[in-house]
Amino acid sequence: MSKVIKCENYSWKGIERKDYKTDTTCYQGVHRFSLLGEQNDEQELNFQTRYFEVKKGGFTSLEYHRHPHSVVIIKGSGSMVLGDEVYKLGLHDVVFISPETLHQFHADNGESLGFICIVDRYRDKPTLPDREYLSKNISNPEVKEKIKQ
Amino acid sequence: MSKVIKCENYSWKGIERKDYKTDTTCYQGVHRFSLLGEQNDEQELNFQTRYFEVKKGGFTSLEYHRHPHSVVIIKGSGSMVLGDEVYKLGLHDVVFISPETLHQFHADNGESLGFICIVDRYRDKPTLPDREYLSKNISNPEVKEKIKQ
Repeated sequence: MSKVIKCENYSWKGIERKDYKTDTTCYQGVHRFSLLGEQNDEQELNFQTRYFEVKKGGFTSLEYHRHPHSVVIIKGSGSMVLGDEVYKLGLHDVVFISPETLHQFHADNGESLGFICIVDRYRDKPTLPDREYLSKNISNPEVKEKIKQ
Repeated sequence: MSKVIKCENYSWKGIERKDYKTDTTCYQGVHRFSLLGEQNDEQELNFQTRYFEVKKGGFTSLEYHRHPHSVVIIKGSGSMVLGDEVYKLGLHDVVFISPETLHQFHADNGESLGFICIVDRYRDKPTLPDREYLSKNISNPEVKEKIKQ
């Protein structure tokens, strides 16, 4: 069923603000809003549209997986680990996270970082990197310093 | 290949600002930016992330199609025809356009209206409504007054 979901200050009418993850993955100060693609009346969508907000000083889990991400920053600024690089992120920057690429978002610029993240409806679960994965894939000192796990 | 595409004032580095449509569909003051999912190095994405900007006074084409849309307003305000209703749109409002639902965006609030629109990579072409479709599906006088074609 078609609908318009009104937003006021990054809070969407009728959409619950949820914990980022329910397992014990390492992260800090992150919440999620499932905007479209998870409700029963949106089954025609093959993808899900979510909003994540990372509080100042917080970070998402360090992970990789088969499914890709399309990301658009819509609040604040920060940085991210993306493979063996660190990138600064600003308003409306767009990120493509290709399959099996290690990533972690950081609200490390003195403000919150909020972004839309689109994923396939049916997708694999994230993998957390172990020491072997990191030693094989990460050589950049800037990345080594940045990652939290 | 993973990447960060930097944005400055709704213009993305390396992404061409294109005409909204190349056919003779009726629309006014609309441009598109194909952000993710159309390049050769983004073949893993099953969906496309586009940004559309409608200039003050402009409107998108009046159309419907089988594939659904997920939309997030990221600039300005306006309104839209969605089925047999007219909705006001403000910053960060989210829209689900379900299959076969007539829709048209209008930048009719004294400013531009810009939005992210996500669609399946493989999808059907839009259909423009004829008189028969409209007389069958549209009865709301507010919608009748709003639509441009």
